[in-house]
Amino acid sequence: MKIYEFNGFPNPARVRIALKEKGLLDNVEFIQVNVPEGEHRTPEFLKKNPSGAVPVLELEDGTFISESNAITEYLDHLTGETTLTGATAKQRAIISMLNRKVEAGLLEGIGAFFHHATDGLGPVLETYQNKEWGEKQKERALETLRWMETVLEGQDYLAGDKISVADITARAGFLFAGFVGIDIPEDCPNVKAYANRLSDRTDAALAA
Amino acid sequence: MKIYEFNGFPNPARVRIALKEKGLLDNVEFIQVNVPEGEHRTPEFLKKNPSGAVPVLELEDGTFISESNAITEYLDHLTGETTLTGATAKQRAIISMLNRKVEAGLLEGIGAFFHHATDGLGPVLETYQNKEWGEKQKERALETLRWMETVLEGQDYLAGDKISVADITARAGFLFAGFVGIDIPEDCPNVKAYANRLSDRTDAALAA
Repeated sequence: MKIYEFNGFPNPARVRIALKEKGLLDNVEFIQVNVPEGEHRTPEFLKKNPSGAVPVLELEDGTFISESNAITEYLDHLTGETTLTGATAKQRAIISMLNRKVEAGLLEGIGAFFHHATDGLGPVLETYQNKEWGEKQKERALETLRWMETVLEGQDYLAGDKISVADITARAGFLFAGFVGIDIPEDCPNVKAYANRLSDRTDAALAA
Repeated sequence: MKIYEFNGFPNPARVRIALKEKGLLDNVEFIQVNVPEGEHRTPEFLKKNPSGAVPVLELEDGTFISESNAITEYLDHLTGETTLTGATAKQRAIISMLNRKVEAGLLEGIGAFFHHATDGLGPVLETYQNKEWGEKQKERALETLRWMETVLEGQDYLAGDKISVADITARAGFLFAGFVGIDIPEDCPNVKAYANRLSDRTDAALAA
């Protein structure tokens, strides 16, 4: 398998962490795509992912899989039990629900703040910016952190006592938040402890 | 099982179609939530879904599952083969990828146009509107339709010859597009035929 990515960015981090959790990090060849220089918008890369984003997984048969959750879904079904996306119908539904709420509220919220309310990737790549929208999405990210504070009461991970893809999405959100200078609010001690727990567990995958 | 919904709206339609495809439509009690009157924002409903949106599935044990894809994931794992979300790792990845691209580009694009660039649900419920953002998201929806035109070349459904959750999301997108008056462009004949095919196949579920 090949992974097209830009190491250090939030969405590539999601797939690196999933690979590490599944014990598959050494089964993958990483290919760097120079996102700050716009390589993800070239006609050649758009053939791999028409959305113009990393990461992209290339299977041995040449199939390209984009979208971080789709790649994680693939990796989780490759080997034995589906530990990251849930084993039963109910577990899968709960994890899918939590993952989407964290993705839409935290990760996409902070992403919108970065791309719209800051310089983002710079004037060449940020062809449309809506500053008011970006500021509003920062509010949404903070609201999501306050909701996560309640979910994490008395448990180590969003879906309970085991890590899931929802936590991986949250880790990418915290990484992005740190990059753009959004702090976890003081009134969210559960989230603060959780962010540290995730960092301790996952940072090796990001450095690999 | 109970489904909290507002029949006729795009996201509830996704779950109704999934129920119909899985032969589960008669196993569910539908409970109407008066979204135009703001019932989805009441403290009582927010206990069921803190995001304040329909549909929500309530399991027999009292667990609430929100987010349309999470509900579909549950329903698809209830009975035998996972026909809507894919059976193999590769099929699941491809369907998850297509579903997310259609959801983000078409359904959420048209949703943003409705809530931001039109009167949406009216001045009481639309507490924040950003007209420029809404107009931009309409462009994104049209770009997504043009990408779908290429995917549908020579095949009946997005993932091939069988219906999947990606098509269900597309059907909800077409329903929403019709409601807000966005037509499928003339240069997208594959998408036009596909929209009619989906309508023929799924409309019974929406009328039930």
